[in-house]
Amino acid sequence: MEQMVNAGHDSKPLEIVQVGIVVKDLEKTIRQLASLWNVGPFRFLEVDLPDAIFHGKETHLRAKLAFAQVGPVELELIEPGEGENIYEEFLRAKGEGVHHLKIPVSDIESEVSRLKERGIGVLQSGNNPDVSFAYMDTEGIIGVILEVLQRKAGPGIK
Amino acid sequence: MEQMVNAGHDSKPLEIVQVGIVVKDLEKTIRQLASLWNVGPFRFLEVDLPDAIFHGKETHLRAKLAFAQVGPVELELIEPGEGENIYEEFLRAKGEGVHHLKIPVSDIESEVSRLKERGIGVLQSGNNPDVSFAYMDTEGIIGVILEVLQRKAGPGIK
Repeated sequence: MEQMVNAGHDSKPLEIVQVGIVVKDLEKTIRQLASLWNVGPFRFLEVDLPDAIFHGKETHLRAKLAFAQVGPVELELIEPGEGENIYEEFLRAKGEGVHHLKIPVSDIESEVSRLKERGIGVLQSGNNPDVSFAYMDTEGIIGVILEVLQRKAGPGIK
Repeated sequence: MEQMVNAGHDSKPLEIVQVGIVVKDLEKTIRQLASLWNVGPFRFLEVDLPDAIFHGKETHLRAKLAFAQVGPVELELIEPGEGENIYEEFLRAKGEGVHHLKIPVSDIESEVSRLKERGIGVLQSGNNPDVSFAYMDTEGIIGVILEVLQRKAGPGIK
């Protein structure tokens, strides 16, 4: 009942390094994950980007994030902040759940261009001193948003 | 803006080894993933379990599955088959998307018992000669179903 098929393609294979989950209450989720499965330690980040882009328009992106390693991948928990953003949009439409899968890239501009040529638009993007990121409109292809992310400094791109 | 917190707990840390995505058309999704990101090779499996359990009742579980490695984790694509099952239930309620995250366990009975004691029920479970699996009702905790899975033979539990 099993068979193998090879994609036959030259580009770099897809690598998923993070599962991003939108939740309503970050602290509550963390308490439950720590209690039930010993998840942690968590690293916290408050996102406050006045010049992010949401569906082609400027938005003030605010969110509370928490990161923890769960075996081979990173778990990102996202509590949407005020204002328009794709996290809040997802929570409203589908409820809590897996919002995106992250792919590390070495050149985000060329990857976003390549995907745009294939008809895949940008849902939300932004920059901070460490990273550039873009959430791509891949729900019609794989059922979930893919985030491409480039680290700006250092060789340890993840 | 960053701080660390430690969970302080003795149990084995959570390890996510697979992202399971429900899709409408397995072949179409695979063609697009191979073309866009060189995902593959895929391994295929037709599930046909006459004695699976769905919300506490026997069900004939049918699904088409495809597996590929995407960096550190495995991608599982799921096309629900006929009959009642949690894949079809998810597709109807939420559309295509990430349905579950898989956790390997060495003793599924004790893990399921432990989670039941914490108020987390079993959504669907089954057996085949290679594995025992249970999809746990964790959507209220982490926004996504967690699948606990035990391999029956060999030391290479994944």
